Amino acid sequence: MSGDEFEIIRNLFAPLATHPGARGLLDDVAVLQGGAVLVATCDAIVEDVHFLAGDPVDTIAKKALRVNLSDLAAKGAKCSGVLVTLVWPNVRPAAQIADFARGLGEDLRFYDAPLLGGDTCASAGPMVVAITAFGEMLGKRCPSRAEARIGEDVWITGSVGAAWVGLQVDRLGLSEEEFPQSLRRYRTPEPRVAFAPSIAAYASASMDVSDGLLEDAGKLAGASHVNLRLRFEDIPISEETRTWIGRAKEKMLELEALAGGDDYEILFTAAPGDRDAIAAAGAASQTRVTRIGSVEPGSGVALVDGAGNALAPPRRGYVHKLGC
Amino acid sequence: MSGDEFEIIRNLFAPLATHPGARGLLDDVAVLQGGAVLVATCDAIVEDVHFLAGDPVDTIAKKALRVNLSDLAAKGAKCSGVLVTLVWPNVRPAAQIADFARGLGEDLRFYDAPLLGGDTCASAGPMVVAITAFGEMLGKRCPSRAEARIGEDVWITGSVGAAWVGLQVDRLGLSEEEFPQSLRRYRTPEPRVAFAPSIAAYASASMDVSDGLLEDAGKLAGASHVNLRLRFEDIPISEETRTWIGRAKEKMLELEALAGGDDYEILFTAAPGDRDAIAAAGAASQTRVTRIGSVEPGSGVALVDGAGNALAPPRRGYVHKLGC
Repeated sequence: MSGDEFEIIRNLFAPLATHPGARGLLDDVAVLQGGAVLVATCDAIVEDVHFLAGDPVDTIAKKALRVNLSDLAAKGAKCSGVLVTLVWPNVRPAAQIADFARGLGEDLRFYDAPLLGGDTCASAGPMVVAITAFGEMLGKRCPSRAEARIGEDVWITGSVGAAWVGLQVDRLGLSEEEFPQSLRRYRTPEPRVAFAPSIAAYASASMDVSDGLLEDAGKLAGASHVNLRLRFEDIPISEETRTWIGRAKEKMLELEALAGGDDYEILFTAAPGDRDAIAAAGAASQTRVTRIGSVEPGSGVALVDGAGNALAPPRRGYVHKLGC
Repeated sequence: MSGDEFEIIRNLFAPLATHPGARGLLDDVAVLQGGAVLVATCDAIVEDVHFLAGDPVDTIAKKALRVNLSDLAAKGAKCSGVLVTLVWPNVRPAAQIADFARGLGEDLRFYDAPLLGGDTCASAGPMVVAITAFGEMLGKRCPSRAEARIGEDVWITGSVGAAWVGLQVDRLGLSEEEFPQSLRRYRTPEPRVAFAPSIAAYASASMDVSDGLLEDAGKLAGASHVNLRLRFEDIPISEETRTWIGRAKEKMLELEALAGGDDYEILFTAAPGDRDAIAAAGAASQTRVTRIGSVEPGSGVALVDGAGNALAPPRRGYVHKLGC
């Protein structure tokens, strides 16, 4: 691999771009068919912020794609195309771009997401992968964060805390064998695409959880001008995370897990009348779904124990700061 | 400015995002209306690659937007929305983000380009601005690079070489007063949006010129499987570039100017029968358009002097290399 940008695009990425709208990655624009209402999202991941420099390069490509697919799934949309911008560090061997393209290609096929275009740049800094994903609505509406209504249930897909443990495993160099699912969840989150049709059908408000459940629940509560009352004991914490916490023997860590980032689960609200239908849809799509709270008058997030007493988590999630 | 990402989005960027599809930048996706055929492009600019660290921050935002608008104009499309991903260096004051947002806002208004969404990230490295721009076709087709036909004319908008001098001015710390247009063209290219309807009406193949006229003409020739014969004396070189070259007294520099990057003019081919119409469209849209060559059988680019003799430029343009 010579590092020539045009060779890289021709040899590594163009073979992935089989959709006619991609124009074989030989043109300056991608062509999207009109007709359906499209949604679009863009999320970038940055080396040593959203992934670690030593992560396998194929998983970096997959994470960049999956965090965007997660956004679409949480809006009840199916991906109809992606644009991939890759900012490649000068100090990293160009040969690794083949690993990146392989990982990207595996996921594009797995998720049936057409690669429509992109851009590649050199940089003296860390790797940046910025993906724009387009989606077609699977239902008639695109649930925002702002549509939770008082009296509704709060639901979450899957479980939280695994990626938070995965990051510790990676950082602390712990045994990967002991926490395989956690490390995998950190490096390659699992967007809940199989549940997207159910989000389209039943969710009032919906968003994906990336900055920690409590932090993101706070955003949904804020946008909807409601209080989200979450029952701590009902919140599904991943098995490996419970193992990790049990070993540390610090009860407070259980609350920390609710603030861990990178879960990429879907937090949504829905009418109580849809409880059975949502449970059935979860079973049918092999997606764990759990009712974890209720929408109440007020503001913010209230985390309560089984007796209804308020719990005070040490932190709520990842807070983004820019610049100095 | 505290550097809190959510405050920055709320205070600086949300006021720019007045289109309903942007959902006030409070949501995870933007909503694009269906109907028209959309095109999409993404171009990223990286500090110290596509702009200099000392450039005014408002012009960095403008350049990032304009290079994308240039792609759309070269395809005969009008911008219908943009997503802006901003990777902000940890060492740069967060207060400068207000300058970035001001510059972006000025250009969004000037070019009537709705801000629909985006992402912001912190980074230990250089600033990266990655923009995805959507466009609606102004005509029935989207001219690719591959549609030049033998016997057609080769045209270019505006003039080339100005940004190349502008970069020297910036790098060498020359007097800005002497080369004001060049520096302006380097920092804030002028996408030929007024000419986009004429591209839609008349162009067979079309692309914007960003890596140097000769380099990009070679790409168009390659995609179309033709030879582009360019008449050196007909190629419009900017006035300040001629001044710069005259002072250096190196004739070879004239050829170098044809390899300079960042022109962001539109290179296109069209049928000879449309010559008068294209000239009239240029006049009507106040866009200089110049016929600089012809589409011939063969491959690559032939640069010839007035007597038809081949000229040998020292280089053809900017060649992108990735990694080590």
